[in-house]
Amino acid sequence: MAKAPKILVLNGPNLNMLGTREPDVYGRESLADIEAKSCKHGEGLGLAVECRQSNSEGQLIDWIQAARNSHQALILNPGGYSHSSIAIMDALLAAQLPVIEVHLSNIHRREAFRHHSYISKVADAVLCGFGSHGYLMALDALALRLNAQQET
Amino acid sequence: MAKAPKILVLNGPNLNMLGTREPDVYGRESLADIEAKSCKHGEGLGLAVECRQSNSEGQLIDWIQAARNSHQALILNPGGYSHSSIAIMDALLAAQLPVIEVHLSNIHRREAFRHHSYISKVADAVLCGFGSHGYLMALDALALRLNAQQET
Amino acid sequence: MAKAPKILVLNGPNLNMLGTREPDVYGRESLADIEAKSCKHGEGLGLAVECRQSNSEGQLIDWIQAARNSHQALILNPGGYSHSSIAIMDALLAAQLPVIEVHLSNIHRREAFRHHSYISKVADAVLCGFGSHGYLMALDALALRLNAQQET
Amino acid sequence: MAKAPKILVLNGPNLNMLGTREPDVYGRESLADIEAKSCKHGEGLGLAVECRQSNSEGQLIDWIQAARNSHQALILNPGGYSHSSIAIMDALLAAQLPVIEVHLSNIHRREAFRHHSYISKVADAVLCGFGSHGYLMALDALALRLNAQQET
Amino acid sequence: MAKAPKILVLNGPNLNMLGTREPDVYGRESLADIEAKSCKHGEGLGLAVECRQSNSEGQLIDWIQAARNSHQALILNPGGYSHSSIAIMDALLAAQLPVIEVHLSNIHRREAFRHHSYISKVADAVLCGFGSHGYLMALDALALRLNAQQET
Amino acid sequence: MAKAPKILVLNGPNLNMLGTREPDVYGRESLADIEAKSCKHGEGLGLAVECRQSNSEGQLIDWIQAARNSHQALILNPGGYSHSSIAIMDALLAAQLPVIEVHLSNIHRREAFRHHSYISKVADAVLCGFGSHGYLMALDALALRLNAQQET
Amino acid sequence: MAKAPKILVLNGPNLNMLGTREPDVYGRESLADIEAKSCKHGEGLGLAVECRQSNSEGQLIDWIQAARNSHQALILNPGGYSHSSIAIMDALLAAQLPVIEVHLSNIHRREAFRHHSYISKVADAVLCGFGSHGYLMALDALALRLNAQQET
Amino acid sequence: MAKAPKILVLNGPNLNMLGTREPDVYGRESLADIEAKSCKHGEGLGLAVECRQSNSEGQLIDWIQAARNSHQALILNPGGYSHSSIAIMDALLAAQLPVIEVHLSNIHRREAFRHHSYISKVADAVLCGFGSHGYLMALDALALRLNAQQET
Amino acid sequence: MAKAPKILVLNGPNLNMLGTREPDVYGRESLADIEAKSCKHGEGLGLAVECRQSNSEGQLIDWIQAARNSHQALILNPGGYSHSSIAIMDALLAAQLPVIEVHLSNIHRREAFRHHSYISKVADAVLCGFGSHGYLMALDALALRLNAQQET
Amino acid sequence: MAKAPKILVLNGPNLNMLGTREPDVYGRESLADIEAKSCKHGEGLGLAVECRQSNSEGQLIDWIQAARNSHQALILNPGGYSHSSIAIMDALLAAQLPVIEVHLSNIHRREAFRHHSYISKVADAVLCGFGSHGYLMALDALALRLNAQQET
Amino acid sequence: MAKAPKILVLNGPNLNMLGTREPDVYGRESLADIEAKSCKHGEGLGLAVECRQSNSEGQLIDWIQAARNSHQALILNPGGYSHSSIAIMDALLAAQLPVIEVHLSNIHRREAFRHHSYISKVADAVLCGFGSHGYLMALDALALRLNAQQET
Amino acid sequence: MAKAPKILVLNGPNLNMLGTREPDVYGRESLADIEAKSCKHGEGLGLAVECRQSNSEGQLIDWIQAARNSHQALILNPGGYSHSSIAIMDALLAAQLPVIEVHLSNIHRREAFRHHSYISKVADAVLCGFGSHGYLMALDALALRLNAQQET
Repeated sequence: MAKAPKILVLNGPNLNMLGTREPDVYGRESLADIEAKSCKHGEGLGLAVECRQSNSEGQLIDWIQAARNSHQALILNPGGYSHSSIAIMDALLAAQLPVIEVHLSNIHRREAFRHHSYISKVADAVLCGFGSHGYLMALDALALRLNAQQET
Repeated sequence: MAKAPKILVLNGPNLNMLGTREPDVYGRESLADIEAKSCKHGEGLGLAVECRQSNSEGQLIDWIQAARNSHQALILNPGGYSHSSIAIMDALLAAQLPVIEVHLSNIHRREAFRHHSYISKVADAVLCGFGSHGYLMALDALALRLNAQQET
Repeated sequence: MAKAPKILVLNGPNLNMLGTREPDVYGRESLADIEAKSCKHGEGLGLAVECRQSNSEGQLIDWIQAARNSHQALILNPGGYSHSSIAIMDALLAAQLPVIEVHLSNIHRREAFRHHSYISKVADAVLCGFGSHGYLMALDALALRLNAQQET
Repeated sequence: MAKAPKILVLNGPNLNMLGTREPDVYGRESLADIEAKSCKHGEGLGLAVECRQSNSEGQLIDWIQAARNSHQALILNPGGYSHSSIAIMDALLAAQLPVIEVHLSNIHRREAFRHHSYISKVADAVLCGFGSHGYLMALDALALRLNAQQET
Repeated sequence: MAKAPKILVLNGPNLNMLGTREPDVYGRESLADIEAKSCKHGEGLGLAVECRQSNSEGQLIDWIQAARNSHQALILNPGGYSHSSIAIMDALLAAQLPVIEVHLSNIHRREAFRHHSYISKVADAVLCGFGSHGYLMALDALALRLNAQQET
Repeated sequence: MAKAPKILVLNGPNLNMLGTREPDVYGRESLADIEAKSCKHGEGLGLAVECRQSNSEGQLIDWIQAARNSHQALILNPGGYSHSSIAIMDALLAAQLPVIEVHLSNIHRREAFRHHSYISKVADAVLCGFGSHGYLMALDALALRLNAQQET
Repeated sequence: MAKAPKILVLNGPNLNMLGTREPDVYGRESLADIEAKSCKHGEGLGLAVECRQSNSEGQLIDWIQAARNSHQALILNPGGYSHSSIAIMDALLAAQLPVIEVHLSNIHRREAFRHHSYISKVADAVLCGFGSHGYLMALDALALRLNAQQET
Repeated sequence: MAKAPKILVLNGPNLNMLGTREPDVYGRESLADIEAKSCKHGEGLGLAVECRQSNSEGQLIDWIQAARNSHQALILNPGGYSHSSIAIMDALLAAQLPVIEVHLSNIHRREAFRHHSYISKVADAVLCGFGSHGYLMALDALALRLNAQQET
Repeated sequence: MAKAPKILVLNGPNLNMLGTREPDVYGRESLADIEAKSCKHGEGLGLAVECRQSNSEGQLIDWIQAARNSHQALILNPGGYSHSSIAIMDALLAAQLPVIEVHLSNIHRREAFRHHSYISKVADAVLCGFGSHGYLMALDALALRLNAQQET
Repeated sequence: MAKAPKILVLNGPNLNMLGTREPDVYGRESLADIEAKSCKHGEGLGLAVECRQSNSEGQLIDWIQAARNSHQALILNPGGYSHSSIAIMDALLAAQLPVIEVHLSNIHRREAFRHHSYISKVADAVLCGFGSHGYLMALDALALRLNAQQET
Repeated sequence: MAKAPKILVLNGPNLNMLGTREPDVYGRESLADIEAKSCKHGEGLGLAVECRQSNSEGQLIDWIQAARNSHQALILNPGGYSHSSIAIMDALLAAQLPVIEVHLSNIHRREAFRHHSYISKVADAVLCGFGSHGYLMALDALALRLNAQQET
Repeated sequence: MAKAPKILVLNGPNLNMLGTREPDVYGRESLADIEAKSCKHGEGLGLAVECRQSNSEGQLIDWIQAARNSHQALILNPGGYSHSSIAIMDALLAAQLPVIEVHLSNIHRREAFRHHSYISKVADAVLCGFGSHGYLMALDALALRLNAQQET
């Protein structure tokens, strides 16, 4: 039997504050809630989902690089680093894995400096504005993609 | 029994060329294939999906305005009008319906003039780079949202 | 007796939604109300006022071109096309008629991309922020101008 | 009987040169002619019109501030200060009166540095290109507005 | 005997006003004159030339898409849409035909917003400033190119 | 005994409207209140504080130039002139006195055109967002500095 | 008796080099000196001051987030991260505490890339150019504010 | 005998500080010295030279307007208003007199915001970097020009 | 019999490398081949064609100036100088001859810095993307124009 | 007796066309006329004036470098190279001579790309708009300066 | 005998992926290979070379600061932080050591956002495009420089 | 025995002034010194080094083109032409030789207009800030590269 593909879900700076911070905007779910929901949803899709969060750019880069040998795909919510981190962008290039970029809110309705993302230049696909449901949608899409590859 | 919510799927300029045009980039599915797949997927979700395409900005605006009284939500792939049409953006504001913006390719990996979308400023959510699967993901998200509303 | 000068009042995209759309911003009058009010006001000034609306840039251009031989002046609310349509600007140049550009709201208090209008570069005069009364003011100004020409 | 509402008409730098300066562009009327015409037109509308001109930014600000307690509305042709005076803009905010901005010529047909007006960001309405008739149109609009308020 | 290659000559917004509009700039020939001249010149070159004009962006896109299966090459004067229409640009990419972009006047001597053309990014060749003679030059070039292909 | 150092506190355009204008934003203190508070606070620090306000750029420049020979330091709230007045900036250079720039509100949270100040390029120090308390803080800092100089 | 409000003073990258680095510009005080001075000054104001420094953006974000539950206000000198860190800005928003931004030098007299600060967009107040005395001024202002709150 | 042509020499903000302010840059001559030198030099050229200085933009505009009827030419050193005053530029247009713009220092070697002058757009000629000698050179040029006109 | 009009064909920097340099892009014809082809084609049109090439901007200017008295028209491929040479642009203005600008490749499909040409601002007509055939097209157009002039 | 200081007057591209080219703008004097006038004027001032012109940037640089050892000052009209030549600017820096930049017309009234001059960044003084008289004014200024130096 | 000068070679984010990541671009050497090669090359030059790599901006700053007291010079490949890190730039200023910036590839041939480096503003010298050989070249240059200093 | 590969070292405008010009910045070595040093260093590496300098852009292009058939590699210090010469950039493309760009000073520490180099877009490698030693480093790198090729 094929082993479950491993997916790494990375959340960047300030996403550990979910639930506490501006609940009217971001909802009342904590990051732990979302991570639990993602793992369970992944299970249903035959995916082994692992979740991590860091406020440190360097830590995120370390994890992305290491994922190259341990995971089959990445889901990344880069938070505030989306708009300035060429180093994370380069790490994704180096990791050579499928990447889906997720934002909880629709960043295009917010301040102008949030409209541009370096991560989007290298991600395979991007989704924003779906709230925490976006992580599950990203898992669905990866399941489809990884199955297609397996079948080939 | 509640009547199935009606979803209007609109495709803008040149999307009628799918399958013929650059199949290596856009895949071999025609727009008719995608529309059929969307209708069927909607059915499974209890949604009545209707699909239309036009190369005319004015026609798209007419349809968006009319949807206000006939549909419960919109899925819009604005094609090349994404980047210039303030008039379609205004029509979406006037329609006061949930809107999900869909692009087949990841527009952020393409030419700089494709990175900005007026539609994203008013859409509820945006997804790009998932190919034709993106329409089904948008339907999933709308089903979830409309059910949540119905239950309230 | 001199025949009443004919004035063409053109409204661009989304102005057919007036009354329904954001009534707190745009008032509760429908476009039909404004058109009726304009015709009646024109009559009082000895002007034959004709009103049309379209969401299509091409249709507006067709009407502007044709007005050259059928009307003596134009009042144009170009809506969202104000900010992008060089083609409508060129049609006004080709029509060689007096043109007054009207906007219901003060566009300079809105988003930055609404501050620039290609139409203003060729209009004889511009007014914005007077609500539906602006159309009547434009008619007053044209009456004055056309009478002055007739008397000469 | 209700007392006539008082309107302050302010003209900024160089408008005292009207009639002498480039008569082909600005017409042969002097500022005194236009002020007389405005007072008389106001009278017909039941408005007490007072007119002042200054080349000094500070003087214009003093007058705008003082109008808060002595007048019911402002008509302002800010001349060359339109494009640079944040201080006049702030004075208008402080005065909390209805303001109509008037320009004799269509500033959008002139040099690029005349297309942007700080005053337009706070004015209720703007009109340009109607020559000296614009002041009378502004008075008409204010009469309508002040009457509407009185009737409420 | 080889069948005459079919060339589609498309003229965009306001080109139907030729002859009437600013004859000192654009000459006294009407669009009908130019189209007749082009057909006749094409005949001499062994080309079947078909000419159409529209003020509608959507209509032009429809025609460009359809040409893929009915014509061997396109000559396009996109008029005011040159500077804003990503949708027409995309249609040309989809049509996969040789395209020559023609402008009657030298657009680089006119206003700055006319210096940039989205169409030029995908056209095979561009010519401007040759008046109506430019269409005949474009036909010459296509004849040469299509013959070269036939001979190979 | 050393004579009390003289400090000139200058307030620019519209600051005379404090208390009346947008009290929710700027507080209910009038400029007179703030000036009285500043004088009293200065006294406690051994400083002779003199306060003036003008809406006129020229007047402010006159005062700044004259202060060179009559005062030991300047506190300046340049109001709307902060963002445009190279002439006030030059006057400060000519006065060769210590200068502290004060703004009641945090100008960096307001419109983009308020983020840049010519005065900041020549001021010794800048503070904003502390409300009327900012003037007292500036006096504290000057007292410290002037004492340090006296002691040397 | 009310417990002393706790203030967290954070210094960003390179501020640990104070005293050693360019003493003519930044003075001869070390960061330890300034921290000691701040603690003592806070004591006098009834504030419990805690000081930390890090060169790591992620560490600063961690501390800011944690302060939400342990401190009543923040004083932040973000050093070189002022100009690029949207992530620190977001952390401050999430922390929902009063924040005063402090810079030792007047950043507006330095290179252009130092004139813009993301932190200023969310700070309550900003001061720069007062040297190490600025930290004490910030403490004074917070003392005033926290007392005012306590009294209400 | 022909009456001596009258020349008005206007100096803008901060030029009254000459001699005191940065003597290493601007020299040790006071404005009074320069004005005396200019009058005497004018006399030698058969010109009646009158000199005035103001820090007030409005005052400068008043003088420029009045010069239309009292003087034959203007020499203007607009100081810091060079870079921002559209109103002075308009006054010069209204005055319809020959104008020479003079700057003591070479403004192109200074900060970037001093490189652009609105006055230069309407002046007949411009000179900068010649110190106080520049006024005399401007008088020479005007003498030549006014004589040439008289002789014609 | 009328003497053959003389045409000067000038090629700028690096066009002497044709045939050797990137033959897949620029074709295998050498500049000598193109010059020979142009002379022969000119002969057929009754034009005396003279061809020169230089890598030196100054040399090109010398030739353009001299052509004023020796030739009736210019064909110019300015190569890399197109994008930077105001001096060649001025020389063309001084020469007062009809000028056609030719580029072998479609410069609008290349790097952004190649999209702007100073030469296009003064050329009568521009063509690009027709390869070496462009020179012959330019000759055709000049023949037509010079004949038209001769006949008048 | 002191030897006459040697002045090199350099004219850049297209100035050899003076008199022939646009005489209404540039006057009917040829460059030879101006050079003769300059030499004679220099003689009267005790200066040995030498004049050269070239269309070649490299030639102008050679002459400027060589002047270091043979002349005491430079007068330079850089023509079209003003706006692009960093190399001429560097040559002037290397020559270490007093330099006056002269333009016949007021370049600030012309196209925007003529408003910026690299030469002005290193010239001692700049004058424009005085026609050919400007060269004589530059000589006057140099005579004054060189005499002052000699006397010291 | 003089002790060997100590050189710190720092590599920034993603350089630990060398050899694995895009070997066609970056070569097949691992970072360990390059570090070994550098140490050995340093030995031959009489330099004690120490090599470190981190993906964390804060870690790099810590190392740079500490080097001030432990090393004589720095070689830095800042990777993706080159383009955004003002904090690393400030750390280099604080370290007051000779710094050579090295990039493996020629960053000027890559995306526009890689053309600007904050590090280059403070480095003594910069080299890019020499592959791993660049580190050895930097060591050569430092050896030369440190010897020169020692000899003085 | 293999013949020594030939290297052409080209120096652009003003580099012939080395030693004389700003010796504190550029050192006291003349260009002749550097050329001699380069030839000798080349000899030691088995390279035949030839050095030339010109102030003329056209001459540099001629030499670069010719080197294609006579040399194996280029070292180029383009001086002031770095920042503006698309023509030299094109010549390097046409020459199809390895190119190393050298600058004596670190151009990124100088004025902003010196930060961008067209040459860097096509050079294989770039180095700056190493003084005259940079030429020797470039020779070392070429020796390594040419040997590697020879061995293959």
